[in-house]
Amino acid sequence: MFDPVEKLKEFIRHPSVSADSAFADGMKGAQSFVSELLQSIGFEVEVVQTDLHPIILASRGTDPSWPHVIIYGHYDVQPADPLNLWESEAFEPEQRGDRLYGRGTADNKGPLMTHIAAVGKLLEAEPDLPLRITFMIEGEEEMGSPSFPKFLEQYSERLKQADLVFLSDTGIPSEDQVVITCGLRGLVLFDIEVTTAKSDLHSGLHGGVLRNPIQALTEVCASLHGPDGRVNVPGFYDDVLDVEPWEKDELVKYGTDTEAYRKFLGIPAFYTAEGFTPFEAVRFMPTLDFNGIGGGYQGEGSKTVIPSKAMAKVSCRLVANQDPKKIRQLVYAAIRERAPKDVTLRLIDQHEGTPYVVVPPDRSNTPADQSPVLADAFRAADTAIADVFGKPPLYLREGGSVPIIADIKRVLGLDSVMFGLFLPEDNLHAPNESFHLGVMERGMKVSEQVLRKLAGR
Amino acid sequence: MFDPVEKLKEFIRHPSVSADSAFADGMKGAQSFVSELLQSIGFEVEVVQTDLHPIILASRGTDPSWPHVIIYGHYDVQPADPLNLWESEAFEPEQRGDRLYGRGTADNKGPLMTHIAAVGKLLEAEPDLPLRITFMIEGEEEMGSPSFPKFLEQYSERLKQADLVFLSDTGIPSEDQVVITCGLRGLVLFDIEVTTAKSDLHSGLHGGVLRNPIQALTEVCASLHGPDGRVNVPGFYDDVLDVEPWEKDELVKYGTDTEAYRKFLGIPAFYTAEGFTPFEAVRFMPTLDFNGIGGGYQGEGSKTVIPSKAMAKVSCRLVANQDPKKIRQLVYAAIRERAPKDVTLRLIDQHEGTPYVVVPPDRSNTPADQSPVLADAFRAADTAIADVFGKPPLYLREGGSVPIIADIKRVLGLDSVMFGLFLPEDNLHAPNESFHLGVMERGMKVSEQVLRKLAGR
Repeated sequence: MFDPVEKLKEFIRHPSVSADSAFADGMKGAQSFVSELLQSIGFEVEVVQTDLHPIILASRGTDPSWPHVIIYGHYDVQPADPLNLWESEAFEPEQRGDRLYGRGTADNKGPLMTHIAAVGKLLEAEPDLPLRITFMIEGEEEMGSPSFPKFLEQYSERLKQADLVFLSDTGIPSEDQVVITCGLRGLVLFDIEVTTAKSDLHSGLHGGVLRNPIQALTEVCASLHGPDGRVNVPGFYDDVLDVEPWEKDELVKYGTDTEAYRKFLGIPAFYTAEGFTPFEAVRFMPTLDFNGIGGGYQGEGSKTVIPSKAMAKVSCRLVANQDPKKIRQLVYAAIRERAPKDVTLRLIDQHEGTPYVVVPPDRSNTPADQSPVLADAFRAADTAIADVFGKPPLYLREGGSVPIIADIKRVLGLDSVMFGLFLPEDNLHAPNESFHLGVMERGMKVSEQVLRKLAGR
Repeated sequence: MFDPVEKLKEFIRHPSVSADSAFADGMKGAQSFVSELLQSIGFEVEVVQTDLHPIILASRGTDPSWPHVIIYGHYDVQPADPLNLWESEAFEPEQRGDRLYGRGTADNKGPLMTHIAAVGKLLEAEPDLPLRITFMIEGEEEMGSPSFPKFLEQYSERLKQADLVFLSDTGIPSEDQVVITCGLRGLVLFDIEVTTAKSDLHSGLHGGVLRNPIQALTEVCASLHGPDGRVNVPGFYDDVLDVEPWEKDELVKYGTDTEAYRKFLGIPAFYTAEGFTPFEAVRFMPTLDFNGIGGGYQGEGSKTVIPSKAMAKVSCRLVANQDPKKIRQLVYAAIRERAPKDVTLRLIDQHEGTPYVVVPPDRSNTPADQSPVLADAFRAADTAIADVFGKPPLYLREGGSVPIIADIKRVLGLDSVMFGLFLPEDNLHAPNESFHLGVMERGMKVSEQVLRKLAGR
């Protein structure tokens, strides 16, 4: 078996920045490196071309009676700049203490290597393991996975035969407290644009005669929340499910130090939906947030202009059971109804993503038809994590969005077991990214144990 | 007597752009040109230094029993760019038909020359004219007259002995319809800035937990108008006087073609205070307008950020009898009361200007203590304009603001007779500025006749 840390260092040395075409060689190098590594441990590797960066699809085991697990990961990384803030070279891994530093160590090369090494070790010990394993490793995750949904459609016949997806691309609060992420929020993004006159006008010569587009826009925007802070769009909350008591209990174990969180955000007070703690609100409630607003003169001093146009950028975060298309319609209908009729209103679609939720087995709201292999994977992970990390994992929904997890569910019908491995101090997407090698070692043991258990050994 | 058109051409050839230090020679040349011209017609000229461009103060007549008129003008001009849009050189005057083209021909060199030539001709005919005349000609009007209020204070003892100010720096609708501007709106400008968190935050990881500053800002902005479009600030309209019927009658003579105005603005419908036509609203009603708004991400596509800060730029236009300091206090108090208490709210003062109104004699609302010399000037202007232009002037308030007129009233206690001379097609502040030489000739006759009348001749 190869040395996982040495192999991870090799992986890091390929500067695979997907968003920057100057790194084409690094992308190709990283892809070849992973493909060859998977071949070396007995996988059949297919490199699936996309419009941009190929997806690696590697399989072992062909017996259709065996359980089948897909392991997801990505070989691309975020850009490393600002380079001057790095204490060691971004693409020359350096071990300091129990951490390995370098771009991509935690996101996602380290966690991906954890699973590859676990599989390698397991197959070395049990070459005939009755388990189908498919690695599905993309190269565009840091760009928003533009080629991924099409790939899923193209390979759906083959991939939907699997029982579940297993991955490590989420976080944990501390070295000894693992989290299995059981939900992600969805997204609906759009712009509101209001136009009045054909050009900017002098506010002295014409002020008092025509609608100001900023006034019209702020009135529309202000109408979208009630005085209690709730989103004031009829039907917006209709499909939100009650939170199960077990979910709130898990969250209490996660942490209750709202004061530390408040200080971290740098705000004088929280502003959450009634009846929800901040930790709950961010996970269990949908939002409508303004990401930007603009119009007229924004420079120093003043310019007495009535602008002809103003716009706002809006994002809704959705929770389990909400449908982005329906929410988009409801919000658009409310805006269209409330905007003055004598302005030109444009609602410009930006992207959207479906919320995702998976319920572990044996919970009050576990679906009756949950796949037994998925249930086994959760149980195996729970036991392995408790053994290896000393504490059972927490099962939490998160406030962020990872649209590919919902895409996998939508296209393939598969749920994901998201086994978190990176820590808050790992500096993802920032200078001096690192990965904790102790967590990696424990992660390998968990991954190996889960896969072994799925094989019935 | 000099040839007024030839002298005007000479004046235009001095490129006196006050805002651009590259034109220092042009400024100096224009100032010397005017000073020498006034000396040549018998004025004692004083060049008053300021922090930037000097003010020309020139007088004739010393008998304190004579009436005393101040003639205001400015020798600086707007920048001429974009130069490629000019059909002839901006600073080389060219006569085409009955118009003289060049930067400053209409604003304000032509109208100023009209008065200087009228005075020159009058004094040539009547060297002993019993009238004190003071020219007060500044060089910073196109920059907002920053040195002017201080100058007024410094020279107030001397200048407040005058009876009125006479000037031509306003517009008229057509060649044969003169307007005497009897009112200008005031101004209160400020920025609203709302800050929540200490830095921008990820809308997935933290959305639902804290106030969005754009939401808070739009709620505050939206609260500043009622559903009927009126400014929703207690006390905002308290000091607005009823419009006298004679003012509405004058405006009807000015024009009633609201449809042409609507098309000019390029709007589907007007949005005016109830009970006011658009032409009335812009002159007789105060406003609160948003000149700009900004915060968060304003580029292409989307960025799921909760910004830490958002701001709006606001201008109020005030009408006669409203006090900018009081209005500022009222609006600030409303904003402070309505803004959420858990945001950092900053209200940033920008400049302000007092509204101005002067009522001609013999009107329903003419002040009982109106200066007889001012009343004489109005009556003389009315007669002269009717004689020379074939129609009596209209007496109208305007929507714009010329803060120096209110400053003169405040510091010197003097009212102004604003005898308009430029036409909509004169292209002020734009390429191919021109001045109608027929209007100039008629203007000279009016000016001469008014001054002669004031001297009792």
